[in-house]
Amino acid sequence: MKLYSAPYAPNPRRVTMFLAEKGVTDVEIVTLDLQAGQHRTDDFRAKSPFSQIPTLELDDGRCLTESRAICTYLESLYAEPNLMGADPFERAEIEMWDRRAELMVTLPMMMWVRHGNPLLAALEKNQSPAIAAANEATAMKMAKWFDAQLATRDFLAGDRLTIVDLTALAGIDFAKMNKWRPDDETPNLKRWRAMMADRPAGKVAP
Amino acid sequence: MKLYSAPYAPNPRRVTMFLAEKGVTDVEIVTLDLQAGQHRTDDFRAKSPFSQIPTLELDDGRCLTESRAICTYLESLYAEPNLMGADPFERAEIEMWDRRAELMVTLPMMMWVRHGNPLLAALEKNQSPAIAAANEATAMKMAKWFDAQLATRDFLAGDRLTIVDLTALAGIDFAKMNKWRPDDETPNLKRWRAMMADRPAGKVAP
Repeated sequence: MKLYSAPYAPNPRRVTMFLAEKGVTDVEIVTLDLQAGQHRTDDFRAKSPFSQIPTLELDDGRCLTESRAICTYLESLYAEPNLMGADPFERAEIEMWDRRAELMVTLPMMMWVRHGNPLLAALEKNQSPAIAAANEATAMKMAKWFDAQLATRDFLAGDRLTIVDLTALAGIDFAKMNKWRPDDETPNLKRWRAMMADRPAGKVAP
Repeated sequence: MKLYSAPYAPNPRRVTMFLAEKGVTDVEIVTLDLQAGQHRTDDFRAKSPFSQIPTLELDDGRCLTESRAICTYLESLYAEPNLMGADPFERAEIEMWDRRAELMVTLPMMMWVRHGNPLLAALEKNQSPAIAAANEATAMKMAKWFDAQLATRDFLAGDRLTIVDLTALAGIDFAKMNKWRPDDETPNLKRWRAMMADRPAGKVAP
Protein backbone atom coordinates (compact mmCIF):
# COMPACT_ATOMS: atom_id res chain seq x y z
CA MET A 1 0.00 0.00 0.00
CA LYS A 2 1.06 3.56 -0.64
CA LEU A 3 0.01 6.64 1.28
CA TYR A 4 0.30 9.90 -0.65
CA SER A 5 1.21 12.66 1.74
CA ALA A 6 2.91 16.06 1.95
CA PRO A 7 4.94 17.89 4.59
CA TYR A 8 3.09 20.35 6.85
CA ALA A 9 -0.35 19.27 5.60
CA PRO A 10 -2.52 18.52 8.63
CA ASN A 11 -4.79 15.87 7.09
CA PRO A 12 -2.07 13.46 5.95
CA ARG A 13 -0.51 13.84 9.38
CA ARG A 14 -3.69 12.47 10.97
CA VAL A 15 -3.04 9.24 9.08
CA THR A 16 0.72 9.11 9.61
CA MET A 17 0.17 9.67 13.35
CA PHE A 18 -2.47 6.91 13.29
CA LEU A 19 0.07 4.54 11.71
CA ALA A 20 2.74 5.60 14.22
CA GLU A 21 0.49 4.85 17.20
CA LYS A 22 -0.20 1.40 15.74
CA GLY A 23 3.49 0.80 15.09
CA VAL A 24 2.85 0.19 11.39
CA THR A 25 5.94 0.69 9.25
CA ASP A 26 5.09 -1.21 6.06
CA VAL A 27 2.95 1.43 4.37
CA GLU A 28 5.04 3.25 1.77
CA ILE A 29 4.80 7.03 2.16
CA VAL A 30 4.90 8.89 -1.16
CA THR A 31 5.62 12.57 -0.60
CA LEU A 32 4.09 14.99 -3.08
CA ASP A 33 5.38 18.49 -3.71
CA LEU A 34 2.25 20.62 -3.48
CA GLN A 35 4.01 23.82 -4.47
CA ALA A 36 5.07 22.10 -7.69
CA GLY A 37 1.47 20.94 -8.23
CA GLN A 38 2.21 17.21 -8.06
CA HIS A 39 -1.29 16.69 -6.62
CA ARG A 40 -2.88 18.37 -9.64
CA THR A 41 -1.70 16.00 -12.37
CA ASP A 42 -4.21 13.86 -14.30
CA ASP A 43 -2.42 10.83 -12.96
CA PHE A 44 -2.99 11.80 -9.35
CA ARG A 45 -6.53 13.00 -9.99
CA ALA A 46 -7.36 9.50 -11.21
CA LYS A 47 -6.57 8.38 -7.66
CA SER A 48 -7.96 11.40 -5.84
CA PRO A 49 -10.51 13.39 -7.88
CA PHE A 50 -10.17 16.54 -5.77
CA SER A 51 -6.37 16.33 -5.63
CA GLN A 52 -6.70 15.65 -1.93
CA ILE A 53 -4.05 14.20 0.25
CA PRO A 54 -3.89 11.88 2.05
CA THR A 55 -4.79 9.24 -0.51
CA LEU A 56 -4.28 5.56 0.22
CA GLU A 57 -3.59 3.32 -2.78
CA LEU A 58 -4.05 -0.39 -2.24
CA ASP A 59 -1.86 -2.95 -3.95
CA ASP A 60 -4.72 -3.76 -6.33
CA GLY A 61 -4.99 -0.08 -7.36
CA ARG A 62 -8.14 0.85 -5.47
CA CYS A 63 -7.85 4.21 -3.75
CA LEU A 64 -9.32 5.86 -0.70
CA THR A 65 -9.30 9.52 0.18
CA GLU A 66 -10.55 11.32 3.32
CA SER A 67 -8.36 10.86 6.40
CA ARG A 68 -10.99 9.31 8.59
CA ALA A 69 -12.12 6.83 5.93
CA ILE A 70 -8.49 5.81 5.41
CA CYS A 71 -8.13 5.30 9.18
CA THR A 72 -11.30 3.18 9.21
CA TYR A 73 -9.72 0.88 6.64
CA LEU A 74 -6.34 0.81 8.39
CA GLU A 75 -8.05 -0.01 11.70
CA SER A 76 -9.50 -3.13 10.05
CA LEU A 77 -6.03 -4.22 8.88
CA TYR A 78 -4.11 -3.29 12.02
CA ALA A 79 -6.52 -3.85 14.85
CA GLU A 80 -4.22 -3.16 17.80
CA PRO A 81 -3.96 -0.90 19.64
CA ASN A 82 -7.60 -0.11 19.05
CA LEU A 83 -8.02 3.58 18.20
CA MET A 84 -11.60 3.73 16.91
CA GLY A 85 -13.69 1.71 19.32
CA ALA A 86 -13.86 -1.94 20.39
CA ASP A 87 -17.64 -2.41 20.46
CA PRO A 88 -20.58 -0.79 18.64
CA PHE A 89 -21.37 1.82 21.26
CA GLU A 90 -17.73 2.76 21.72
CA ARG A 91 -17.24 3.02 17.97
CA ALA A 92 -20.18 5.41 17.79
CA GLU A 93 -19.03 7.38 20.84
CA ILE A 94 -15.52 7.80 19.44
CA GLU A 95 -16.98 8.85 16.09
CA MET A 96 -19.08 11.45 17.93
CA TRP A 97 -16.00 12.81 19.69
CA ASP A 98 -13.97 12.66 16.51
CA ARG A 99 -16.56 14.76 14.73
CA ARG A 100 -16.58 17.26 17.58
CA ALA A 101 -12.79 17.49 17.43
CA GLU A 102 -12.71 17.75 13.67
CA LEU A 103 -15.67 20.01 12.98
CA MET A 104 -15.40 22.24 16.03
CA VAL A 105 -11.63 22.49 16.52
CA THR A 106 -9.50 21.15 13.70
CA LEU A 107 -11.50 22.40 10.72
CA PRO A 108 -11.89 25.92 12.20
CA MET A 109 -8.15 25.99 13.00
CA MET A 110 -7.37 24.98 9.41
CA MET A 111 -9.80 27.47 7.90
CA TRP A 112 -8.43 30.22 10.13
CA VAL A 113 -4.92 29.51 8.85
CA ARG A 114 -5.93 28.98 5.22
CA HIS A 115 -7.94 32.19 5.08
CA GLY A 116 -5.89 34.26 7.48
CA ASN A 117 -2.27 33.46 6.77
CA PRO A 118 -0.55 35.31 3.90
CA LEU A 119 1.79 32.36 3.38
CA LEU A 120 -1.17 30.29 2.23
CA ALA A 121 -2.55 32.80 -0.27
CA ALA A 122 -1.19 30.70 -3.14
CA LEU A 123 -3.10 27.61 -1.98
CA GLU A 124 -6.30 29.39 -0.92
CA LYS A 125 -6.93 31.70 -3.83
CA ASN A 126 -10.03 33.34 -2.35
CA GLN A 127 -8.77 34.17 1.11
CA SER A 128 -11.50 35.91 3.09
CA PRO A 129 -10.87 37.93 6.27
CA ALA A 130 -14.51 37.32 7.33
CA ILE A 131 -14.07 33.56 7.04
CA ALA A 132 -10.74 33.74 8.87
CA ALA A 133 -12.29 35.76 11.71
CA ALA A 134 -15.34 33.53 12.10
CA ASN A 135 -13.18 30.42 12.21
CA GLU A 136 -10.70 31.95 14.63
CA ALA A 137 -13.55 32.81 16.99
CA THR A 138 -14.95 29.26 16.82
CA ALA A 139 -11.53 27.68 17.22
CA MET A 140 -10.63 29.76 20.27
CA LYS A 141 -14.00 29.18 21.94
CA MET A 142 -13.81 25.45 21.32
CA ALA A 143 -10.20 25.23 22.49
CA LYS A 144 -11.49 26.47 25.86
CA TRP A 145 -14.35 23.97 25.83
CA PHE A 146 -12.01 21.08 25.11
CA ASP A 147 -9.64 22.42 27.76
CA ALA A 148 -12.46 22.14 30.28
CA GLN A 149 -13.10 18.53 29.23
CA LEU A 150 -9.47 17.68 29.86
CA ALA A 151 -9.67 18.98 33.44
CA THR A 152 -10.97 15.57 34.50
CA ARG A 153 -9.34 13.20 32.04
CA ASP A 154 -6.16 12.60 30.11
CA PHE A 155 -7.54 11.91 26.65
CA LEU A 156 -10.25 13.54 24.57
CA ALA A 157 -12.49 10.47 24.32
CA GLY A 158 -12.52 7.86 27.07
CA ASP A 159 -9.56 6.67 29.10
CA ARG A 160 -7.05 5.86 26.38
CA LEU A 161 -5.62 7.50 23.30
CA THR A 162 -7.97 7.33 20.32
CA ILE A 163 -8.21 8.79 16.85
CA VAL A 164 -9.85 11.83 18.48
CA ASP A 165 -6.56 12.94 20.06
CA LEU A 166 -4.85 12.66 16.67
CA THR A 167 -7.56 14.62 14.88
CA ALA A 168 -7.35 17.42 17.43
CA LEU A 169 -3.55 17.44 17.46
CA ALA A 170 -3.37 17.85 13.69
CA GLY A 171 -5.51 20.98 13.85
CA ILE A 172 -3.97 22.43 16.97
CA ASP A 173 -0.43 22.04 15.67
CA PHE A 174 -1.42 23.58 12.33
CA ALA A 175 -2.55 26.72 14.18
CA LYS A 176 1.10 27.33 15.09
CA MET A 177 1.24 28.90 11.63
CA ASN A 178 -0.99 31.64 13.03
CA LYS A 179 1.21 31.79 16.15
CA TRP A 180 -1.30 30.06 18.38
CA ARG A 181 -0.58 27.14 20.64
CA PRO A 182 -2.11 25.85 23.88
CA ASP A 183 -0.80 28.08 26.66
CA ASP A 184 -1.75 29.03 30.22
CA GLU A 185 -5.20 30.14 29.09
CA THR A 186 -5.88 26.51 28.24
CA PRO A 187 -3.71 24.73 30.85
CA ASN A 188 -5.29 21.30 30.42
CA LEU A 189 -4.87 21.41 26.69
CA LYS A 190 -1.27 22.50 27.25
CA ARG A 191 -0.70 19.49 29.54
CA TRP A 192 -2.35 17.19 26.97
CA ARG A 193 -0.17 18.66 24.19
CA ALA A 194 2.98 17.98 26.26
CA MET A 195 1.81 14.41 26.93
CA MET A 196 1.16 13.90 23.21
CA ALA A 197 4.67 15.14 22.38
CA ASP A 198 6.12 12.09 24.15
CA ARG A 199 4.01 9.60 22.23
CA PRO A 200 4.67 8.02 18.83
CA ALA A 201 2.13 10.40 17.25
CA GLY A 202 3.89 13.44 18.67
CA LYS A 203 7.15 12.40 17.04
CA VAL A 204 5.64 12.34 13.54
CA ALA A 205 6.96 15.27 11.52
CA PRO A 206 4.34 17.88 10.66
CA MET B 1 -34.43 4.48 22.81
CA LYS B 2 -35.43 8.07 22.13
CA LEU B 3 -34.34 10.24 19.24
CA TYR B 4 -34.57 13.97 19.90
CA SER B 5 -35.45 15.73 16.68
CA ALA B 6 -37.09 18.86 15.27
CA PRO B 7 -39.09 19.64 12.14
CA TYR B 8 -37.21 21.11 9.15
CA ALA B 9 -33.79 20.49 10.71
CA PRO B 10 -31.63 18.67 8.16
CA ASN B 11 -29.39 16.72 10.54
CA PRO B 12 -32.16 14.91 12.47
CA ARG B 13 -33.72 14.07 9.10
CA ARG B 14 -30.57 12.18 8.12
CA VAL B 15 -31.27 9.84 11.03
CA THR B 16 -35.04 9.58 10.57
CA MET B 17 -34.48 8.77 6.88
CA PHE B 18 -31.91 6.16 7.92
CA LEU B 19 -34.47 4.56 10.24
CA ALA B 20 -37.12 4.71 7.51
CA GLU B 21 -34.90 2.91 4.99
CA LYS B 22 -34.26 0.20 7.59
CA GLY B 23 -37.95 -0.07 8.40
CA VAL B 24 -37.31 0.66 12.08
CA THR B 25 -40.37 1.94 13.89
CA ASP B 26 -39.56 1.29 17.55
CA VAL B 27 -37.36 4.32 18.20
CA GLU B 28 -39.42 6.97 19.98
CA ILE B 29 -39.13 10.37 18.27
CA VAL B 30 -39.19 13.28 20.71
CA THR B 31 -39.86 16.54 18.88
CA LEU B 32 -38.27 19.65 20.35
CA ASP B 33 -39.50 23.17 19.69
CA LEU B 34 -36.32 25.03 18.75
CA GLN B 35 -38.05 28.42 18.52
CA ALA B 36 -39.13 27.96 22.15
CA GLY B 37 -35.56 27.00 23.06
CA GLN B 38 -36.34 23.47 24.22
CA HIS B 39 -32.86 22.42 23.09
CA ARG B 40 -31.24 25.04 25.31
CA THR B 41 -32.44 23.79 28.70
CA ASP B 42 -29.97 22.44 31.26
CA ASP B 43 -31.81 19.16 31.08
CA PHE B 44 -31.23 18.79 27.37
CA ARG B 45 -27.66 20.08 27.55
CA ALA B 46 -26.90 17.22 29.94
CA LYS B 47 -27.72 14.93 27.01
CA SER B 48 -26.25 17.08 24.24
CA PRO B 49 -23.66 19.61 25.44
CA PHE B 50 -23.97 21.82 22.35
CA SER B 51 -27.77 21.65 22.28
CA GLN B 52 -27.47 19.68 19.07
CA ILE B 53 -30.15 17.61 17.53
CA PRO B 54 -30.36 14.80 16.67
CA THR B 55 -29.50 13.23 20.01
CA LEU B 56 -30.07 9.53 20.64
CA GLU B 57 -30.78 8.51 24.23
CA LEU B 58 -30.38 4.85 25.04
CA ASP B 59 -32.61 3.09 27.56
CA ASP B 60 -29.74 3.14 30.08
CA GLY B 61 -29.43 6.92 29.73
CA ARG B 62 -26.27 7.07 27.63
CA CYS B 63 -26.51 9.60 24.83
CA LEU B 64 -25.00 10.04 21.40
CA THR B 65 -24.99 13.17 19.27
CA GLU B 66 -23.71 13.71 15.70
CA SER B 67 -25.91 12.21 12.98
CA ARG B 68 -23.32 9.94 11.48
CA ALA B 69 -22.23 8.55 14.85
CA ILE B 70 -25.87 7.84 15.69
CA CYS B 71 -26.24 6.03 12.36
CA THR B 72 -23.11 3.98 13.09
CA TYR B 73 -24.72 2.77 16.31
CA LEU B 74 -28.11 2.15 14.68
CA GLU B 75 -26.42 0.17 11.89
CA SER B 76 -25.02 -2.18 14.54
CA LEU B 77 -28.50 -2.73 16.01
CA TYR B 78 -30.42 -2.96 12.74
CA ALA B 79 -28.01 -4.52 10.30
CA GLU B 80 -30.32 -4.87 7.29
CA PRO B 81 -30.56 -3.41 4.78
CA ASN B 82 -26.90 -2.52 5.06
CA LEU B 83 -26.41 1.23 4.54
CA MET B 84 -22.83 1.77 5.72
CA GLY B 85 -20.79 -1.03 4.16
CA ALA B 86 -20.66 -4.80 4.47
CA ASP B 87 -16.89 -5.33 4.59
CA PRO B 88 -13.92 -3.21 5.71
CA PHE B 89 -13.10 -1.72 2.34
CA GLU B 90 -16.73 -0.94 1.57
CA ARG B 91 -17.19 0.64 4.98
CA ALA B 92 -14.22 2.89 4.31
CA GLU B 93 -15.34 3.66 0.76
CA ILE B 94 -18.84 4.62 1.89
CA GLU B 95 -17.35 6.76 4.66
CA MET B 96 -15.22 8.51 2.03
CA TRP B 97 -18.28 9.21 -0.11
CA ASP B 98 -20.29 10.22 2.92
CA ARG B 99 -17.67 12.77 3.83
CA ARG B 100 -17.62 14.10 0.28
CA ALA B 101 -21.40 14.43 0.33
CA GLU B 102 -21.47 16.00 3.76
CA LEU B 103 -18.47 18.32 3.62
CA MET B 104 -18.72 19.33 -0.03
CA VAL B 105 -22.48 19.45 -0.60
CA THR B 106 -24.62 19.23 2.51
CA LEU B 107 -22.60 21.42 4.84
CA PRO B 108 -22.16 24.19 2.22
CA MET B 109 -25.90 24.03 1.45
CA MET B 110 -26.70 24.35 5.15
CA MET B 111 -24.23 27.19 5.70
CA TRP B 112 -25.55 29.00 2.63
CA VAL B 113 -29.08 28.83 4.06
CA ARG B 114 -28.06 29.61 7.64
CA HIS B 115 -26.00 32.64 6.65
CA GLY B 116 -28.04 33.75 3.65
CA ASN B 117 -31.68 33.30 4.61
CA PRO B 118 -33.35 36.08 6.62
CA LEU B 119 -35.74 33.53 8.16
CA LEU B 120 -32.80 31.97 9.97
CA ALA B 121 -31.40 35.19 11.43
CA ALA B 122 -32.78 34.25 14.84
CA LEU B 123 -30.91 30.93 14.86
CA GLU B 124 -27.69 32.19 13.24
CA LYS B 125 -27.02 35.37 15.14
CA ASN B 126 -23.89 36.32 13.20
CA GLN B 127 -25.13 35.88 9.66
CA SER B 128 -22.37 36.76 7.19
CA PRO B 129 -22.98 37.52 3.51
CA ALA B 130 -19.36 36.53 2.75
CA ILE B 131 -19.86 33.12 4.35
CA ALA B 132 -23.18 32.68 2.57
CA ALA B 133 -21.62 33.54 -0.81
CA ALA B 134 -18.60 31.27 -0.37
CA ASN B 135 -20.81 28.36 0.62
CA GLU B 136 -23.27 28.98 -2.19
CA ALA B 137 -20.41 28.89 -4.70
CA THR B 138 -19.07 25.63 -3.28
CA ALA B 139 -22.51 24.05 -3.09
CA MET B 140 -23.39 24.93 -6.69
CA LYS B 141 -20.03 23.74 -8.02
CA MET B 142 -20.27 20.48 -6.13
CA ALA B 143 -23.90 19.92 -7.16
CA LYS B 144 -22.60 19.84 -10.74
CA TRP B 145 -19.78 17.48 -9.82
CA PHE B 146 -22.16 15.07 -8.14
CA ASP B 147 -24.52 15.43 -11.09
CA ALA B 148 -21.70 14.22 -13.35
CA GLN B 149 -21.11 11.22 -11.08
CA LEU B 150 -24.77 10.25 -11.38
CA ALA B 151 -24.56 10.20 -15.18
CA THR B 152 -23.32 6.62 -14.97
CA ARG B 153 -24.98 5.28 -11.84
CA ASP B 154 -28.17 5.47 -9.81
CA PHE B 155 -26.77 6.02 -6.33
CA LEU B 156 -24.03 8.24 -4.96
CA ALA B 157 -21.85 5.42 -3.63
CA GLY B 158 -21.87 2.00 -5.26
CA ASP B 159 -24.85 0.22 -6.75
CA ARG B 160 -27.36 0.46 -3.94
CA LEU B 161 -28.76 3.12 -1.64
CA THR B 162 -26.40 3.98 1.21
CA ILE B 163 -26.13 6.57 3.95
CA VAL B 164 -24.44 8.81 1.36
CA ASP B 165 -27.71 9.33 -0.52
CA LEU B 166 -29.42 10.30 2.73
CA THR B 167 -26.68 12.73 3.72
CA ALA B 168 -26.85 14.45 0.35
CA LEU B 169 -30.65 14.52 0.29
CA ALA B 170 -30.81 16.24 3.67
CA GLY B 171 -28.63 19.08 2.42
CA ILE B 172 -30.15 19.35 -1.03
CA ASP B 173 -33.69 19.50 0.33
CA PHE B 174 -32.67 22.11 2.90
CA ALA B 175 -31.50 24.37 0.07
CA LYS B 176 -35.14 24.67 -1.01
CA MET B 177 -35.25 27.36 1.66
CA ASN B 178 -32.98 29.40 -0.61
CA LYS B 179 -35.19 28.47 -3.59
CA TRP B 180 -32.69 26.03 -5.06
CA ARG B 181 -33.46 22.51 -6.13
CA PRO B 182 -31.97 20.13 -8.72
CA ASP B 183 -33.26 21.25 -12.12
CA ASP B 184 -32.32 20.87 -15.77
CA GLU B 185 -28.86 22.25 -15.09
CA THR B 186 -28.22 19.15 -13.01
CA PRO B 187 -30.40 16.58 -14.81
CA ASN B 188 -28.88 13.50 -13.21
CA LEU B 189 -29.29 14.95 -9.74
CA LYS B 190 -32.89 15.81 -10.67
CA ARG B 191 -33.50 12.20 -11.74
CA TRP B 192 -31.88 10.93 -8.52
CA ARG B 193 -34.03 13.32 -6.45
CA ALA B 194 -37.19 12.00 -8.16
CA MET B 195 -36.09 8.42 -7.50
CA MET B 196 -35.44 9.26 -3.83
CA ALA B 197 -38.92 10.77 -3.51
CA ASP B 198 -40.43 7.32 -4.08
CA ARG B 199 -38.34 5.62 -1.41
CA PRO B 200 -39.03 5.36 2.33
CA ALA B 201 -36.45 8.10 2.96
CA GLY B 202 -38.17 10.48 0.57
CA LYS B 203 -41.42 10.14 2.44
CA VAL B 204 -39.91 11.31 5.75
CA ALA B 205 -41.17 14.77 6.58
CA PRO B 206 -38.52 17.48 6.48
